Amino acid sequence: MGRAYNFSAGPAALPEPVIQQAREELPDWRGAGASVLELSHRGPEFMDVAAQAEADLRSLLAIPADHAVLFLTGGATTQQALIALNFADQGQPADYVVTGHWGRIAVEQVEPVMPVNVAADNAADGCVDIPPASQWRLSENAAYLHYTDNETIHGVEFPELPPAGGAPLIGDFSSNIGSRPLDFSRLGMVYAGAQKNLGPSGISLAVIRPDLLERSGQPRAPMFDYRAHARAGSMLNTPPTFNWYLAGLVFKWMLAEGGVAEFERRSARKAALLYSAIDGSGGFYVNRVAPAVRSRMNVPFFLHDKALEPRFLEQAAAAGLIGLKGHRALGGIRASIYNAMPEAGVRALVEFMGAFRDRYG
Amino acid sequence: MGRAYNFSAGPAALPEPVIQQAREELPDWRGAGASVLELSHRGPEFMDVAAQAEADLRSLLAIPADHAVLFLTGGATTQQALIALNFADQGQPADYVVTGHWGRIAVEQVEPVMPVNVAADNAADGCVDIPPASQWRLSENAAYLHYTDNETIHGVEFPELPPAGGAPLIGDFSSNIGSRPLDFSRLGMVYAGAQKNLGPSGISLAVIRPDLLERSGQPRAPMFDYRAHARAGSMLNTPPTFNWYLAGLVFKWMLAEGGVAEFERRSARKAALLYSAIDGSGGFYVNRVAPAVRSRMNVPFFLHDKALEPRFLEQAAAAGLIGLKGHRALGGIRASIYNAMPEAGVRALVEFMGAFRDRYG
Repeated sequence: MGRAYNFSAGPAALPEPVIQQAREELPDWRGAGASVLELSHRGPEFMDVAAQAEADLRSLLAIPADHAVLFLTGGATTQQALIALNFADQGQPADYVVTGHWGRIAVEQVEPVMPVNVAADNAADGCVDIPPASQWRLSENAAYLHYTDNETIHGVEFPELPPAGGAPLIGDFSSNIGSRPLDFSRLGMVYAGAQKNLGPSGISLAVIRPDLLERSGQPRAPMFDYRAHARAGSMLNTPPTFNWYLAGLVFKWMLAEGGVAEFERRSARKAALLYSAIDGSGGFYVNRVAPAVRSRMNVPFFLHDKALEPRFLEQAAAAGLIGLKGHRALGGIRASIYNAMPEAGVRALVEFMGAFRDRYG
Repeated sequence: MGRAYNFSAGPAALPEPVIQQAREELPDWRGAGASVLELSHRGPEFMDVAAQAEADLRSLLAIPADHAVLFLTGGATTQQALIALNFADQGQPADYVVTGHWGRIAVEQVEPVMPVNVAADNAADGCVDIPPASQWRLSENAAYLHYTDNETIHGVEFPELPPAGGAPLIGDFSSNIGSRPLDFSRLGMVYAGAQKNLGPSGISLAVIRPDLLERSGQPRAPMFDYRAHARAGSMLNTPPTFNWYLAGLVFKWMLAEGGVAEFERRSARKAALLYSAIDGSGGFYVNRVAPAVRSRMNVPFFLHDKALEPRFLEQAAAAGLIGLKGHRALGGIRASIYNAMPEAGVRALVEFMGAFRDRYG
């Protein structure tokens, strides 16, 4: 069909210039005699790719020089498992604020090895709002407070960084990193799988404040020790080189487009367009999330008549709008509108939604 | 320079038809409207890619139907860390046979969480031979016996599967998987990073016997639990989709070339060519590994005059022979001749070595 507008929640659309550059560089990477896929991670060519990607990410997110930036595998869920081992003493609790599916997964990852205090949970209200921070039940001696800045499935996003009490704040930014500035003075650790806003699947990012990084944590393998990864420049073992390279191309593209401030503006416009179409549909399309905490990245919605959903997805695909099927945990439709989704794609979706409603409303 | 013969130890050369196919399929994967990089791992297109790759790997390695086949991230080193958590009770020891650098890394990964019994170690002899099994000091109640079938840095390879006593045998086959048949009736688990013989970096494979998989092991995150990965079809979280796809292309290429038996024949021929050139050089080139345990995959060697090494590497690169620098732990030269390296590449290297010796010998 040629390239469609791809609303997949992740792996997600990549910027077209990135795909084109990767394609052009595939058989022989910049005269190296081999593709970047085939180059040693210790060789000068890939070391340069890696260093450039880190420098660009630091510039893009304005990461303080003393913070460690790690390129890791295992996805965000592995980071969820590692934070308990790295940052909590044996027996020490941590606070978890749960505002959807991924917050709960984060709790499940650490329950086997630490006492978890769920300080707040929006499950009772169907995961459509964020309990006010004044109601959170924080522990006295929490190792950290973990929360999910944007819930990819439920479409719930913190409008701003939450307070953490006295404990370091650890945020899962997998699905909205790079879509607004981050205040690192208020964050102990930021982590994200790259496959939504920053690149392909198979690589994850972690930014860790030095005092947190130096905690002794629990007995663990060197591979599970962030300090070891930091000392080794994220090359404790063979990294996912091609994924790293692609993420680097995305960073360069984002910088060239105007950086995080520009993507924040674009995200606001794209989200406003789509929520307007939903709210203005006279109930044909429904999103139940409280307006103040609606995600600018993932817009889940339902058709008033559930039976129309397969037809919606089928006709959307025929119109060049793909990846719109909702997560199996929730059903319905979900449009993920990450940084690589142009406003034209959202306009095309909104137009399709209007036409579909005219046809079946 | 156009594509060179790439002797990198990993990430390593991929078969040229695989690179070409990946390139052709990049912007729009088989009419899906997006590249395979951008497709949801839960969508029908990628689910098919994943299932086909598993089926092809099972066929390629003749993996018994009741064995779990996992596609994982984190590299072989992460599997080294996970085997203790998954297969040993708290306090239970495991036996480790160390025959080089990676065997020692495997020990380091588990020391923080289990009593390790190093049953044998060839460090005293400079890692150039394998201590006979009759001298291994096995534990009474070992959870398993771990060994490294091929040591990528030291170039030491087991000529056949070792005996394991009563414990399940766990083998790191990262650098020689797919180069000879595996007898799964004698193996509890086989694992490998893909980036040497089977694909790109960023994806690892584990084949686990059912009785081993069902062990309860130690308290750990679901992400660190092989059972959870097996139940989820290796999609417990977002997998490295592009890496999985590329590995699948390599499996198909290997099957089309004649399968493991054919690569065993090719490996024997390639290794014989190269070791002959070294041994027949009158001491100009030296490999100190005992002939019976010389690796068919990684051939480290030294020049009689160490000062000539930079010139050797420079002139080799100019002749289109790249990736020959030895690992920093050992120095010297290393030629990795995995499945994707054609015999013509080895012949070109041997010819270059002869000419270099004529010039400087």
